[in-house]
Amino acid sequence: MTASAQLTQWVYDFQDGSRDLRDLLGGKGAGIAEMTRILGPDAVPPGFTITTEACVAVAAADGEDPPGLAEQIAKGMARLEERAGKRFGSAEDPLLVSVRSGARESMPGMMDTVLNLGLNDVSVRGLAERTGDAQFAWDSYRRLVQMFGNVVQGIPSEVFEDAIAETKRAAGARLDSELSVDDLRHLTAIFRDRYRADTGRDFPHDPAEQLHQAIHAVFDSWWGERAMAYRRLNRIPDDWGTAVNVQRMVFGNMGRGSATGVAFSRDEVTGAPEPSGDFLVNAQGEDVVSGVRNTGELAQLGAIMPAAYERLMGILRTLEAHYRDMQDTEFTIEDGRLYMLQTRSAKRPAQAAVRFACDAVDEGLLTPEQALGTLDADALDALLHPTFDPRAEYDILARGVAASPGAAKGAVVFTAEEAVEAAERGRDVILVRPFTEADDVAGFHAARGILTSEGGKASHAALVARGMGRPAVVGADGLEIDLQDRVIRDGTTVVGEGERIAIDGTAGLVTLDDVPLVEAQIDDRFRRVLSWADDVRRLAVRANADQPEDAVRARELGASGIGLCRTEHMFMAADRTPKMRAMIMAESPEARRAALAELRPLQQSDFEGLFEAMGGNPVTIRLLDPPLHEFLPDHAQVALEVELAREGASEALPDLERTLHKIEELHETNPMLGLRGCRLGIRYPEIYEMQVEAIMRAVRAVGERTGAPPHVEVMIPLVDYAAEFDRMRALVVRVAEAEGMRADDDYTVGAMIELPRACIVADRIAAGADFFSFGTNDLTQTVLGFSRDDAEKHFLADYLDAKLVSCSPFDTIDEGVRWLVELGVARARSAKPAMTLGVCGEHGGDPESIRFFHAAGLDYVSCSPFRVPIARIAAAQAAIEAG
Amino acid sequence: MTASAQLTQWVYDFQDGSRDLRDLLGGKGAGIAEMTRILGPDAVPPGFTITTEACVAVAAADGEDPPGLAEQIAKGMARLEERAGKRFGSAEDPLLVSVRSGARESMPGMMDTVLNLGLNDVSVRGLAERTGDAQFAWDSYRRLVQMFGNVVQGIPSEVFEDAIAETKRAAGARLDSELSVDDLRHLTAIFRDRYRADTGRDFPHDPAEQLHQAIHAVFDSWWGERAMAYRRLNRIPDDWGTAVNVQRMVFGNMGRGSATGVAFSRDEVTGAPEPSGDFLVNAQGEDVVSGVRNTGELAQLGAIMPAAYERLMGILRTLEAHYRDMQDTEFTIEDGRLYMLQTRSAKRPAQAAVRFACDAVDEGLLTPEQALGTLDADALDALLHPTFDPRAEYDILARGVAASPGAAKGAVVFTAEEAVEAAERGRDVILVRPFTEADDVAGFHAARGILTSEGGKASHAALVARGMGRPAVVGADGLEIDLQDRVIRDGTTVVGEGERIAIDGTAGLVTLDDVPLVEAQIDDRFRRVLSWADDVRRLAVRANADQPEDAVRARELGASGIGLCRTEHMFMAADRTPKMRAMIMAESPEARRAALAELRPLQQSDFEGLFEAMGGNPVTIRLLDPPLHEFLPDHAQVALEVELAREGASEALPDLERTLHKIEELHETNPMLGLRGCRLGIRYPEIYEMQVEAIMRAVRAVGERTGAPPHVEVMIPLVDYAAEFDRMRALVVRVAEAEGMRADDDYTVGAMIELPRACIVADRIAAGADFFSFGTNDLTQTVLGFSRDDAEKHFLADYLDAKLVSCSPFDTIDEGVRWLVELGVARARSAKPAMTLGVCGEHGGDPESIRFFHAAGLDYVSCSPFRVPIARIAAAQAAIEAG
Repeated sequence: MTASAQLTQWVYDFQDGSRDLRDLLGGKGAGIAEMTRILGPDAVPPGFTITTEACVAVAAADGEDPPGLAEQIAKGMARLEERAGKRFGSAEDPLLVSVRSGARESMPGMMDTVLNLGLNDVSVRGLAERTGDAQFAWDSYRRLVQMFGNVVQGIPSEVFEDAIAETKRAAGARLDSELSVDDLRHLTAIFRDRYRADTGRDFPHDPAEQLHQAIHAVFDSWWGERAMAYRRLNRIPDDWGTAVNVQRMVFGNMGRGSATGVAFSRDEVTGAPEPSGDFLVNAQGEDVVSGVRNTGELAQLGAIMPAAYERLMGILRTLEAHYRDMQDTEFTIEDGRLYMLQTRSAKRPAQAAVRFACDAVDEGLLTPEQALGTLDADALDALLHPTFDPRAEYDILARGVAASPGAAKGAVVFTAEEAVEAAERGRDVILVRPFTEADDVAGFHAARGILTSEGGKASHAALVARGMGRPAVVGADGLEIDLQDRVIRDGTTVVGEGERIAIDGTAGLVTLDDVPLVEAQIDDRFRRVLSWADDVRRLAVRANADQPEDAVRARELGASGIGLCRTEHMFMAADRTPKMRAMIMAESPEARRAALAELRPLQQSDFEGLFEAMGGNPVTIRLLDPPLHEFLPDHAQVALEVELAREGASEALPDLERTLHKIEELHETNPMLGLRGCRLGIRYPEIYEMQVEAIMRAVRAVGERTGAPPHVEVMIPLVDYAAEFDRMRALVVRVAEAEGMRADDDYTVGAMIELPRACIVADRIAAGADFFSFGTNDLTQTVLGFSRDDAEKHFLADYLDAKLVSCSPFDTIDEGVRWLVELGVARARSAKPAMTLGVCGEHGGDPESIRFFHAAGLDYVSCSPFRVPIARIAAAQAAIEAG
Repeated sequence: MTASAQLTQWVYDFQDGSRDLRDLLGGKGAGIAEMTRILGPDAVPPGFTITTEACVAVAAADGEDPPGLAEQIAKGMARLEERAGKRFGSAEDPLLVSVRSGARESMPGMMDTVLNLGLNDVSVRGLAERTGDAQFAWDSYRRLVQMFGNVVQGIPSEVFEDAIAETKRAAGARLDSELSVDDLRHLTAIFRDRYRADTGRDFPHDPAEQLHQAIHAVFDSWWGERAMAYRRLNRIPDDWGTAVNVQRMVFGNMGRGSATGVAFSRDEVTGAPEPSGDFLVNAQGEDVVSGVRNTGELAQLGAIMPAAYERLMGILRTLEAHYRDMQDTEFTIEDGRLYMLQTRSAKRPAQAAVRFACDAVDEGLLTPEQALGTLDADALDALLHPTFDPRAEYDILARGVAASPGAAKGAVVFTAEEAVEAAERGRDVILVRPFTEADDVAGFHAARGILTSEGGKASHAALVARGMGRPAVVGADGLEIDLQDRVIRDGTTVVGEGERIAIDGTAGLVTLDDVPLVEAQIDDRFRRVLSWADDVRRLAVRANADQPEDAVRARELGASGIGLCRTEHMFMAADRTPKMRAMIMAESPEARRAALAELRPLQQSDFEGLFEAMGGNPVTIRLLDPPLHEFLPDHAQVALEVELAREGASEALPDLERTLHKIEELHETNPMLGLRGCRLGIRYPEIYEMQVEAIMRAVRAVGERTGAPPHVEVMIPLVDYAAEFDRMRALVVRVAEAEGMRADDDYTVGAMIELPRACIVADRIAAGADFFSFGTNDLTQTVLGFSRDDAEKHFLADYLDAKLVSCSPFDTIDEGVRWLVELGVARARSAKPAMTLGVCGEHGGDPESIRFFHAAGLDYVSCSPFRVPIARIAAAQAAIEAG
């Protein structure tokens, strides 16, 4: 035993802890200790907590108790016996205890509770005698064997349930409570037999051994598969460990004057100020949870046990005021006396969270800043999309990736054209494809939702759907989407074109049932919370939007500008693709200019729409970014057409061959690292020239028409070298001057910083740039060497499973990427202290990433319109946390 | 005129300059000044230099003279007149001057020389009178009009040559010297007419105007296309500018007592200690260069003009001793008196450079370190590969990219199999393909050289050929390589299978002629120079080698270990690909293990070969790195086979379909950023397990067999996270322990650092790693977001043309990449100060990059075997320069 081990305190009595020790005592332990402190020891049954450090130490010692642990537990039990005036395992007046897990945060898969520890063939008699209720005593004993067998030893619950059913049948009893003492004694014996049969060992008779096994079962469950999977998903480190709470039993099942239940300090669904909850008279805690008996609503308790109810109401108010948050408690009434067993912040749906925040401010319980702190920004997403009615029941046809949140219903269509036609005739449709491509984008506009059988969160379908706010389920690989026969197949089910389906893009579900939808709403309360956030936050929030209708929505949702307009999406509409292709197929700059001249007015009108929608707010327009081959038809398809044209000696052959040749010429091994971004502008300056002309003409037209000159920021993508940026800036300025527009006054020019090299030489790029926008999507791809599509398809899942990463770097910004963003910010500010710096990757809508962007000193984040309210809240929380 | 402009000294008299002012005076000006200083003013005709700064200032002022320049030139001319006792444009005794360009380094496309400035219809008579030689005077005048017209005004030389021919025909003269004074006067009149006809202006009569135009023509030529292109290629900044030298004329054409020539202080081809050069009696400088008359060899001058010759020999010795380098001079003998016109370091072929280095040390002229400084490490490449005999003449069939240096001859074969067969029958063949793939690698071994019609320096063919030291010309796109008809077509020429061709991979040439080859040789002198380098350098030099024969060659060339063994190349041999494919097609870990078990003994024997070849020197083995789809057959090919098998109802269909499915399953959008490197080891640990088993068994076998235990370093590729590395290290240690091998004692485990993120978290990766090797190829791709294949095919040429970059970042390490390597080194050493750090990208063989690696504090560089001697020299030069 080392000196430091001797000093480690593994065990804390409830009265010695507090909520400040949450890391050490777990959530439940800290809550009990805090209640003991503020409500007084009478309100909480006494006991002690074994620390989370003990859990980690036991694992490190391969399951052995670390030095001192056993002794400290024994001393804790001795103090408990003294305080209760009862002895553990006593034949006269036995002390009974519960053992409960309690990590820093609750999680599934953890061993929850074992009640009634301390009972055995001897002490059960003492309990019967002392309470004068042999039925209660034996029922408690059989519950112990059942729970211990099930929870500690993993014996299936059916083993015990079958025995109960058998015994009831034999006794002619309908309810458990109709079993006689003898029945229960017999049942307990059967349980112990079954226990031995299943585990090969006797049910432990020694109470100390019961306690020891139960405590270790809690520790073991921390390392169980479900808990590990949950921690991985929720980025919780393993070395948090779980605490174990050992508490004197109180009994809600000691007759009609006893009860047990859960109580929320406010309505847990709506957030309305009346406490809510469930209870059962004459029952133990697990009966409430198990749903075997129908519980009563909390308000009814007032009629049955008015004193205890009033005390409970007072305690709920005290706890809420003390914790400054809505509470979720457990209580037991033993023979009329109320005991609090647990308190914690109440999980609540987004709507209830917003209501609580508003009410709490009105009641003077919280300041607006504190109220913002009670919100889970990510969860507010639910308020921004229609959802399946949570009360609805329906059959699931298939599951897929929850790729774009929200729910939608409509008739199945299999092509973008059909979607467009149907939309024109006012029909709601769901666009169903094995996967989607650039050609399908028009169909996204027209459809209510998207369903694919292939792809993941980074697939084309997912990205486009999220950008447009269309619900999408992708990669539903249980479905065969047969474009030939125009049906969806799922084993025996066949869904034809025109049949109605519903999808839930928040949960990744597909159903044939007509599930009612609940519409999204930004109600007055949400608006109020957002206005607090706007008062507090330092980060501006812009939206990524390419179309006027997206821009309108973005402003409605509170965006103060457009941080990223991807001009390529403007070329993907059906009437534009042929012109774009003609431009790409052009063999000379002149021919290319002629083709571009046809695209210019279309671009200009797009820009005019955007500018009008945004009033005088900033609009950042990124010049063409993707590789040109993305606009050409599919290689295999054209190759086939060439083959057919050759056989049929078709006149179209030369054109098809030219197209095929161009596709092959433009083919790239790694298009992500190829001829794109400003490399296009350097190779084909006429493309950028056309875009700048269209921008400048739109600026003039809108300025003249509305009197409000647009605030336009021209952004050069994929910059590596200062010389590249300077050359592109010169092009912009030259073309703008020819249109009579002056830099600084009429527009600014900045760089998209999305390559490691750009961060490293950011000071030199900054020298010529008016602003930077960090493109953290591509920066993540290059810093980590992760192609997003390929990583998500081929290995990211392995990395998450193996816990090599705690979350996808495409969801929350990676450490290496953060480091380079910080470097880029520092270097940019060293060259230009007051330079505007923003971010326009998808991380701009992720609360954890937003916390980083705030700390890094950026001026704004830009995200998809539907994430704008979330980003506003998260930006406020970041500012509050930073203090 | 600003105060500072007034102070600018634009003009330096020769006697006021020195070699230390090379940046300001240019190479020629500094050389003349230095000669004036050390040889005395009599040895050099007087004059002055207009600075390089003046050139830049003129360009900045759009061609106008900056303030003070004209005045300073006029004063310089006045001093020159005074010293010469002649007046510029004088009708009695005119001063004549030459104007020559002289940048810091000489380059093509620069306006070189205008002689005899100061002559016009008046002064020509003065010259005739003063020299008593009217023919000389009029010949000098017509030369001025001709040179001025051609060089300053760009009038085609044919214009003048035609007039000379015409005049000679009319006069019945055979030689220029047979023309009479009248003929020459008439010819000069014709020249001036043609001058006017071509330029629309009169030939300037005013000597000052002649001078002004000539000076500005030099400045203008700095901005000419050829000079700019040359500077771009040679990474010379534009703002160096060129100087202009104005010098009193001396005449080598004043009769049989006059001569002009060039003299090297040693033999310019072999480096032998005897001076060499050419001269012409009674001629001006341009006659020597133009090759119109056959020159005499320098030694013959001793017989004709012994005094001048002896003086020249003495001056050559003086200059060489002064400059401590072999000199290349120009001289003129006017009427028996020797004048030196220029001196500079002599350009010399690699062989001569090495000989000079050795002789200079033996003569006590240089220390070995100084001698190393005279070498151009890159140029030594010529000594390591066979070359076309430089004296041979041949017709060029086609030009392509010089992809892998060296020359080769052989019969044309079109497939790898044929190459292998032919090699077995002892025939020399050139493998000719449109492009190559993994399947062709066996053919590289068998062929003497490689020729492709597609691809660039980064193509598969180029990379593999360079790695193996096989000469290769790739991307010879003038050739149509028709695999169907088995011919190479080039317009009308058709080259069939089996016909002999020769390729020069150093110059990128293909010929049908039987050019004699000069074999490569590391002779005693080269060996001696290398041994000096080895004494001086701090960087160790290793080789990248995958096969025992490469390892043997690497050691012969002085590699002290293998810095990178790419294990994937071992799977590409014909007998292994099927097993590799079976492994990839396996549907379960068990099936995969079974396929791997067949590969293990093959890998083991490869490793044994490598270990034996390297004795106890370190061998770094990189575990499997490339994406698995690289080992599968071509997608389109298999798709076609499936189609055919379907039509023919072939029994092979299910297998083919499985293969097709697997190819599609493994397809990646950006394979460079996909499932490769240690991501493979994490997803398919059984692959790495097999490789580690094979390594450890080979270590044991070789240790037992030879008594010299191999020094093996297992390298984990593409590490991003410390957790990834730790997991892979644990796998290596576990498997090695099962084979009875102990970490540290029997092997070490390190990481390949080739992603930005790895540099950023290098300290944490270092904590568990024994060594790092920076993979600067992939690091360049990710830091810049440049896919090498795509960049070289699609945009890098544009970037070089537009001077956005001065060289390919794949040739010389980029600034951003340097920055991250420095960061990685600093972080690694912060965690482990004594950690071994190396580099194994292709930059490891580039002298400029090696200078950086030395400065960055790396322990070794690793490059392809044939670059090892170059790297040894470059490493020594880096150490010497760092001081």
